[in-house]
Amino acid sequence: MTQQGFLRARRPEHKRQRREAILDAARELAMRDGVRAVSLGGVAAAAGLAKSNVGRYFGTREEIYLELAAEAWQDWGDEVGERLRDAGDVEDIVATLTETLAARPLMCDLLGNISTSLEHNVSVESARSCKRVVLRVIADLAARVAAAPSGLTESEGFELVGMVTMTAGLLYPVSNPPPVIRELYAQDPAMAAACPPFLPTLKRMVTAVALGLPELR
Amino acid sequence: MTQQGFLRARRPEHKRQRREAILDAARELAMRDGVRAVSLGGVAAAAGLAKSNVGRYFGTREEIYLELAAEAWQDWGDEVGERLRDAGDVEDIVATLTETLAARPLMCDLLGNISTSLEHNVSVESARSCKRVVLRVIADLAARVAAAPSGLTESEGFELVGMVTMTAGLLYPVSNPPPVIRELYAQDPAMAAACPPFLPTLKRMVTAVALGLPELR
Repeated sequence: MTQQGFLRARRPEHKRQRREAILDAARELAMRDGVRAVSLGGVAAAAGLAKSNVGRYFGTREEIYLELAAEAWQDWGDEVGERLRDAGDVEDIVATLTETLAARPLMCDLLGNISTSLEHNVSVESARSCKRVVLRVIADLAARVAAAPSGLTESEGFELVGMVTMTAGLLYPVSNPPPVIRELYAQDPAMAAACPPFLPTLKRMVTAVALGLPELR
Repeated sequence: MTQQGFLRARRPEHKRQRREAILDAARELAMRDGVRAVSLGGVAAAAGLAKSNVGRYFGTREEIYLELAAEAWQDWGDEVGERLRDAGDVEDIVATLTETLAARPLMCDLLGNISTSLEHNVSVESARSCKRVVLRVIADLAARVAAAPSGLTESEGFELVGMVTMTAGLLYPVSNPPPVIRELYAQDPAMAAACPPFLPTLKRMVTAVALGLPELR
């Protein structure tokens, strides 16, 4: 890329590179500091761009993170969909749904921020584009959960996948608390013991829902 | 109260009144605009105090809301504890746990904000004081769930109560979306239809967990 091209991306491939550089910077900063701590200025600086330049690609920091959320959903859906083919029982299915989330801390962080924060400061188009991906992935996985030996219908599979991701979103910040809460836990071991560990808690809740849903028919 | 007394609260009862006025203002603003939209300056203005004056009582806006969260947990725990005595079956127990939350939109809003936002900007003492109330209420309700005809042990009751409140916290902002998402739903009825309604979804998930947990023994 020429210096000229870097200063002002005019050609489509340069624009794509810029866009990717912004998303990469936002992804790395969020993995280091947590989604809520990252500002638009921070992303611009890390991407080596002026804040106004980032504005050509994304209206707000929330639009950047909503796009990363859609990307994370798609990537998670692809892996889970693939792995569900080999699932032999409910335990396998739950392990697939939950372990893949535990391996994606950025996705869990994003899941906890979408409704409570990100969706408050984006364009309708940005919200639609993310929600379209989320609903497509949930519908796809619901069909695969129903096809696997889950004992669940497709509609119950939809509920299960929605429940897994929602629970992961709220459990993640509880299980990975900020410095003040870590200090509190260091001072008070009884309180620390009551803090639910991410993967075991998620697995147990999802298994309970998977076993309980058929009883509600 | 004299004008002098209002300007500078020196006597303990005046300090209590000030504190209550701040909490009342924060409660009202959050019920009108949502917890995340309220600033410390906004609370001070609504309470008729200077921002610096509010600082004598609360270090940050998050400390105000963590105190309101503790108050909401206590109040919810009292009502649920009372009503669980008359519960005749799992359906009654789930109805009690969930309908009381649906009747407390501010508590649900707070539940979704505690771990993702409020706990990031408070003192250790403020966090401890809220968490102490939360754990006491969960433990108390766990014992009452176990004593009611739930089919659950006290430890499973603890999980159920934790799960109800966590799910309510993430479901509430999904079921009560911000203006951008409401606009999106108005444009796209299929997306609107996929938005889970608060109380029916919460009831179904909690019932599934209540029925599924005993199968995990």
